[in-house]
Amino acid sequence: MAKSLEQIMQETNIVTHLRNSKIGMYIYPGVAPEFTNWRSEQMAWRDSVVLYDQSHHMDEVTVEGPDAQAFLAHVGINDFGNFDMGRAKHFVPVTPAGHVIGDHIIFRLDENKYVTVGRAPTSNWIMFQAAIGKWNVKVSHDPRSDSRPDGKAIYRTHYRFQIQGPDADKIFEEVNGGPVPEIKFFHVDTINIGSRKVQALRHGMAGAPGLEIWGPYADKSYIQSTIAEAAKKVGVEMHFVGSRAYSTNTVESGWIPSPLPGIYTGDGMMKDYREWLTEQSYEAAGSIGGSYVSDNIEDYYVNPFELGYGFYIGWKKDDFIGKDALTKMKGASSNRKKVTFEWNAEDVMKVIASNFAPGEKNYKWIDFPQPNYASSTADKVMQGDKMVGMSMFNGYSFNERCLLSLGVVDQSVEVGDVLEMVWGEPDGGSKKTSVEPHEQTTIRVRVSPTPYSTEARTNYADSWRTKT
Amino acid sequence: MAKSLEQIMQETNIVTHLRNSKIGMYIYPGVAPEFTNWRSEQMAWRDSVVLYDQSHHMDEVTVEGPDAQAFLAHVGINDFGNFDMGRAKHFVPVTPAGHVIGDHIIFRLDENKYVTVGRAPTSNWIMFQAAIGKWNVKVSHDPRSDSRPDGKAIYRTHYRFQIQGPDADKIFEEVNGGPVPEIKFFHVDTINIGSRKVQALRHGMAGAPGLEIWGPYADKSYIQSTIAEAAKKVGVEMHFVGSRAYSTNTVESGWIPSPLPGIYTGDGMMKDYREWLTEQSYEAAGSIGGSYVSDNIEDYYVNPFELGYGFYIGWKKDDFIGKDALTKMKGASSNRKKVTFEWNAEDVMKVIASNFAPGEKNYKWIDFPQPNYASSTADKVMQGDKMVGMSMFNGYSFNERCLLSLGVVDQSVEVGDVLEMVWGEPDGGSKKTSVEPHEQTTIRVRVSPTPYSTEARTNYADSWRTKT
Repeated sequence: MAKSLEQIMQETNIVTHLRNSKIGMYIYPGVAPEFTNWRSEQMAWRDSVVLYDQSHHMDEVTVEGPDAQAFLAHVGINDFGNFDMGRAKHFVPVTPAGHVIGDHIIFRLDENKYVTVGRAPTSNWIMFQAAIGKWNVKVSHDPRSDSRPDGKAIYRTHYRFQIQGPDADKIFEEVNGGPVPEIKFFHVDTINIGSRKVQALRHGMAGAPGLEIWGPYADKSYIQSTIAEAAKKVGVEMHFVGSRAYSTNTVESGWIPSPLPGIYTGDGMMKDYREWLTEQSYEAAGSIGGSYVSDNIEDYYVNPFELGYGFYIGWKKDDFIGKDALTKMKGASSNRKKVTFEWNAEDVMKVIASNFAPGEKNYKWIDFPQPNYASSTADKVMQGDKMVGMSMFNGYSFNERCLLSLGVVDQSVEVGDVLEMVWGEPDGGSKKTSVEPHEQTTIRVRVSPTPYSTEARTNYADSWRTKT
Repeated sequence: MAKSLEQIMQETNIVTHLRNSKIGMYIYPGVAPEFTNWRSEQMAWRDSVVLYDQSHHMDEVTVEGPDAQAFLAHVGINDFGNFDMGRAKHFVPVTPAGHVIGDHIIFRLDENKYVTVGRAPTSNWIMFQAAIGKWNVKVSHDPRSDSRPDGKAIYRTHYRFQIQGPDADKIFEEVNGGPVPEIKFFHVDTINIGSRKVQALRHGMAGAPGLEIWGPYADKSYIQSTIAEAAKKVGVEMHFVGSRAYSTNTVESGWIPSPLPGIYTGDGMMKDYREWLTEQSYEAAGSIGGSYVSDNIEDYYVNPFELGYGFYIGWKKDDFIGKDALTKMKGASSNRKKVTFEWNAEDVMKVIASNFAPGEKNYKWIDFPQPNYASSTADKVMQGDKMVGMSMFNGYSFNERCLLSLGVVDQSVEVGDVLEMVWGEPDGGSKKTSVEPHEQTTIRVRVSPTPYSTEARTNYADSWRTKT
């Protein structure tokens, strides 16, 4: 029988376990690595238009039934007061202790039907909460595509595309056969794509506006080729974005996709949860990568205030999981703040150059455009001898011509401060399969606003990305 | 109706056409980009053992019938005198003018049955020759897997694995249930893998010995997992090699996979061939990348002497395509020689650093571990103002801690000479989708032996890789 996460934790230190996971890279599966090349694909989301194929890398959880809204309002921190039909939200659940578990995009599809989309930790938590509660809801789960399908067919419930960039509206008008309805940010409406009517969410990932559309997976090729044809017809150079460029769009726009779920501590319900999670779960099989090694798993957690999600909180709700803890956390001086780290180019060159010196020590390879080598990243950020922050998700931007990462820093740190990030893992590197033997070094990072992209800072809709 | 290559060539300069192909990167499809990480995968083929999944990236052509041997001996330059059953050869066809078309590995499966495996140009040429000749042969073709399957299942006739590295024999002994028969280099025998009897070719790609095995595609998962289990059992750390590391093994061992097929010139049969090739063919849709731009497509061709294949030639055969031309070419002082170019690390850093300078010019991105950005690569190699060579296939080796490329140089060039390779394309870059806007620069290269790898030079079997 499969072990539970709780059993694993009784046998071993969980930090050691996750830091030495053998799961390999966190993969964006099902999508070709590159369609044109990752530099041009990055340029296109800023300068022309891109199609992101999001059909594969996210879980989908459907919650239906008379208690659907009450249940989800209990599980997430969000204010549900204004959650009308045809809206979407950035759904954030926390533990009773107030630690972020993850986040999904949640769509209200019908009076009593919601679908949530994102990484596994939030899916697992929703399913667990439905299983232990007395809610009149039916929950179904469509997990992300296999990371290494090895030539086998992939089946999902829905295709999911995002079309985005300055020229996106020209394409929508063409596929829709006329002007597209004015859709407010994070609202859903229906548009035509060829012979199909599809749901469309007004969204935008790297700064520029766009639409996220979805429908039955069987329609995927038809929708994709119809959009591509329309782009050709209106003379727009639309780029399909491959899996290599895809994950880097967030370093420009400022969303941290991979906080470590804060579920490894706590008794009662939390212990039950860890007994419910098997050894194959994201929480038990996933990995922590980076220079930060702490015996205390809680040192890797973040709270919603630190990620800029504080203003989502539905304080008026009678109760939701974590409300008491968040009430105490609110405004605490120990809360860190989200920033972008701009990596010093000279130091980056030092790291790369070390991999061109036969017989000498090498620093951890910086893979381009996505240097992350674990499900969750935690690189120490130092001010002198003091750790003042944690770098949590990185990527190279050809648009900005630099490496960037997102993370959190102490309140004392200011934009413009130059800090030192420790790059690579101690003791020659962990046993993760994604790690080659290497030595640690430091890379200077300049603390910068989030989102980093000037475009994203000025053109992005009013949301967590720009709230501070 | 599809255009033919000949029609395309009547409408446009073929060099311009191929240099601006929109086909994108030449992809190693169907295999995950990384299983562990590409540095460790490279280390494993030298230090422990790797499994290469070769099931997807090559065409297979089966030639059967009473005339099979006579036909193939006519099409290829090789001596067929010693082509007994249970042997394989490195099969090389040339044009009547003596230019290399490509190369396959050819296996004699039965008295009158051969299978050849490799890139499309050789497949197409074999099929064409069978179609125009009076040979009593049946030819069937299983093309390589789709480059971007987009979640659809892939079907091939055969799986094909190569297991290689210093520890490979321990695994074979385990899967075979006893010592493996002594198989000579490029000979085939049968071994057991679990419940299956499989054909095994003694081969080795990056220097160390190994076996290439194949069988029905339906057996792929069974064979793969049986080998992986055996590796675990004997305590060998076997690495699966992902598509990113895969293509770089050849820069260590010295085989050039992608000479431009010399089929764009010549009348008579060559013109017929170009009329037979459609616009979708590798020859018409593929791409030339690199700094070398010549109006004359023949300047991209190579002959078998230049690639080190001269000693394959079956001079005693009454006739074969290209015999007269090769007779004249033999020993010509204009024949270039194959070498490895070791890229200067400082100059490589200059190129990379230019992609960290916002607002300034950038040189062509060097993608790791595989910087090639076309089906065929042609970078100019200069000695002062004189072009003395052409760099044809590149890759970074973590084993050697350097970028290497393979190519040809004039006879006057000596091992140890430091030359300048022009890196990037003129005029801001071609219109290939694999090319971002960039400026040209130079990278010093030191001329080095082929194969570069000391291991490959000393341990590889007696073949073209070590013949000079």
